[in-house]
Amino acid sequence: MSKSNLSSRNERNNTKNIYLDYASGVSANPSSIHKEGMKAKIELQNARKEVATILNSQKEEIIFTSGGTESNNIAIQGLVLALQEKKLEKIFNKKLPHIITTNIEHPSVLETCKILQKRKLAEISIVSVEKNGIINPKKIRKEIKENTVLVSVMYANNEIGVIQPIREIAKMIRRYKKNKKNKNQISSKISLPFFHTDAMQAVNYLNLNVEKLGVDLLSLSGSKIERAGRVGVLFKKKSAPLATIFGGGNQEFGLRPGTENLPEILKFSHALKLAQKNKEKEKIRLKKLQDYFIKKLLKLNSNFNDNTKKKTIAKNLVNHKMILNGDLKDRLPNNINVTFPKIPSDLLVIELSTKGIMVSSKSACKSSEKESSYVIRAINPKSDSEIGGLRFSFGSQTTKSDIDYTIKILNKVLIKLKKWYNDA
Amino acid sequence: MSKSNLSSRNERNNTKNIYLDYASGVSANPSSIHKEGMKAKIELQNARKEVATILNSQKEEIIFTSGGTESNNIAIQGLVLALQEKKLEKIFNKKLPHIITTNIEHPSVLETCKILQKRKLAEISIVSVEKNGIINPKKIRKEIKENTVLVSVMYANNEIGVIQPIREIAKMIRRYKKNKKNKNQISSKISLPFFHTDAMQAVNYLNLNVEKLGVDLLSLSGSKIERAGRVGVLFKKKSAPLATIFGGGNQEFGLRPGTENLPEILKFSHALKLAQKNKEKEKIRLKKLQDYFIKKLLKLNSNFNDNTKKKTIAKNLVNHKMILNGDLKDRLPNNINVTFPKIPSDLLVIELSTKGIMVSSKSACKSSEKESSYVIRAINPKSDSEIGGLRFSFGSQTTKSDIDYTIKILNKVLIKLKKWYNDA
Repeated sequence: MSKSNLSSRNERNNTKNIYLDYASGVSANPSSIHKEGMKAKIELQNARKEVATILNSQKEEIIFTSGGTESNNIAIQGLVLALQEKKLEKIFNKKLPHIITTNIEHPSVLETCKILQKRKLAEISIVSVEKNGIINPKKIRKEIKENTVLVSVMYANNEIGVIQPIREIAKMIRRYKKNKKNKNQISSKISLPFFHTDAMQAVNYLNLNVEKLGVDLLSLSGSKIERAGRVGVLFKKKSAPLATIFGGGNQEFGLRPGTENLPEILKFSHALKLAQKNKEKEKIRLKKLQDYFIKKLLKLNSNFNDNTKKKTIAKNLVNHKMILNGDLKDRLPNNINVTFPKIPSDLLVIELSTKGIMVSSKSACKSSEKESSYVIRAINPKSDSEIGGLRFSFGSQTTKSDIDYTIKILNKVLIKLKKWYNDA
Repeated sequence: MSKSNLSSRNERNNTKNIYLDYASGVSANPSSIHKEGMKAKIELQNARKEVATILNSQKEEIIFTSGGTESNNIAIQGLVLALQEKKLEKIFNKKLPHIITTNIEHPSVLETCKILQKRKLAEISIVSVEKNGIINPKKIRKEIKENTVLVSVMYANNEIGVIQPIREIAKMIRRYKKNKKNKNQISSKISLPFFHTDAMQAVNYLNLNVEKLGVDLLSLSGSKIERAGRVGVLFKKKSAPLATIFGGGNQEFGLRPGTENLPEILKFSHALKLAQKNKEKEKIRLKKLQDYFIKKLLKLNSNFNDNTKKKTIAKNLVNHKMILNGDLKDRLPNNINVTFPKIPSDLLVIELSTKGIMVSSKSACKSSEKESSYVIRAINPKSDSEIGGLRFSFGSQTTKSDIDYTIKILNKVLIKLKKWYNDA
């Protein structure tokens, strides 16, 4: 709803349209009770309904946020605060609420848990993923105790693209709850623990049906969906109690105060619909590109390890095989993550960038830190702390010729960088 | 930076431009270390510099947020958490950090303070404004004590448009600090209390020079600036300690994790510059409209109170004079707030809306609540809890003919509603 729309004369109804509510917002505020506000409110409700349909949830279970980081914070901090308000610590024998998560979660989950621990609001257990990057649900099961309030496991990893067994974890949690109920260990109506998944990277390629997934909380971010606005979504099952972490108005069921970012929310709901509609087709297309890229990478690696071609390449690299990071089967179709031992990934990112190829070495949210990716170190504890991994992530515009060019340039860059690994 | 830009061939340099960093963001992420990320980072830095210039601050003192509500939350919650981390409670003899604010602040300040109080993280004093809506700095001075960490007073009120004496309050705080220092009451390097102002409504018409204002923290919202994006700003003086209230990445000096909303931030900085550039001219233009509107309103009211015209109007209204809410001198040029006794403002909003005139009765952030404006009740404790005030707020598109039409319709609506005040 642009300002010019608001101020224009409505000729059909022969009535003027005069906007004298600039203090509410320079464009109509969905919380305003006048006509333009109501129109905005209806648009907001329709967007909420659309997202709810895609997630197979009720519309009251969809909360629009400012982005993925905020969705994760509202989910995790909000749950802990809500349980505190319900004075559940009495049930826990004065123990703090306990959260279980993994060692390769996004910083917006991992750091949020750590902040709660630091502020003595929660106790956390960080479960390690396997060497292929996948979490073993049994390891999570072992950590669950009476005061466990939340299990938070991402749907797909942002760096190495592995897909976590969300349904299996959900099933395990349901089994635990059932057994616990029989033993009458909890008197409260709230059945613990709740299950949260950060689905930011999964959004374009995986099923988001929250019923089938079996999650209580699910986070999405517009910045990972093409043509979506810069907003986020938190799905919150009705039974999951959340307290507000912000002070302010009553927007978004009181959980996300502040004028709703309607223009971006509308873009988000349309883009999410489109992404989910195209996901099967796009998955097949990208899987082919992924397979092709991996084949080319392996060939490139074998060339480097071929003695007859030794002249053109660095001698040390021969003994340091390229590593493909993360499970090759259970992974997103748009992600390839590779480590070239002895070559810092940051250096590769910069070299490729000068040739016009934009890739990354770790979560952008961690890019200002000197250390290499904590995700790569989690799956390969012996890896050099400076090396990390090189992530190629595809989207709708990625073509086979992009990959051919990338492999060609990567080859040149590796040869150019031989000084690095020869001296190493 | 659109996706299509990123994928296009750069013919000039004869190099391709291939974006394989979709997982960082579907458009370039300012935290990415590749070329497109660096470009985005420079754009972000330029926007930060532009805002810093307008506010006369250092660029490291500008934090981009998702909006005004978040800016206020980061300022208030962030300060309290930072002081807790610094274990200042020892200095306070185990007293909680104390916050002073007023009874007509925006919900994002008032509710945030109340949440901190409820969670036993802070103690708050809410000082009442005078009948004209203006706060008396002496009343604030009286509330300051050794453990006072923050004074938060809005620059201009969102409902009744009154402008608070920010410089005077800042001066009073500086005097207090100076005296306190001489007495060596505080051993810490941190000089308490800090001074925060919510400048959302002031942004288009008042001076935002933080040095001249003498504030340590200042909040802005894009939703109140024409053509600005849906982001916010928090100015945070270097000496003011803030702890992060979110877990996540290192963006915005660690105070606002999450991918920066670059497209909206760029819009914000341009729009802020334009609004501040035009403010003197626009202030004069709107002040004329405001005076004209008030004159017309008073005439309309006197007609209703004119015995010779009694036939056309309701008899009871004659005895209930219209009230212009808020000081008439120290107020924003774009705001008029009026109470018609016995007539609920919500009803007037809806009636005017059906005639194409969009106005409001209270903060949109409080619109879902049944009670009338707490701001109107604050300045007129005897006012009927259902009546509230009717706010007309102007913007760049508002013209004299809009006001003529509005007065004409308001007159009709008041006559139509006579049943209300006759029965009341």
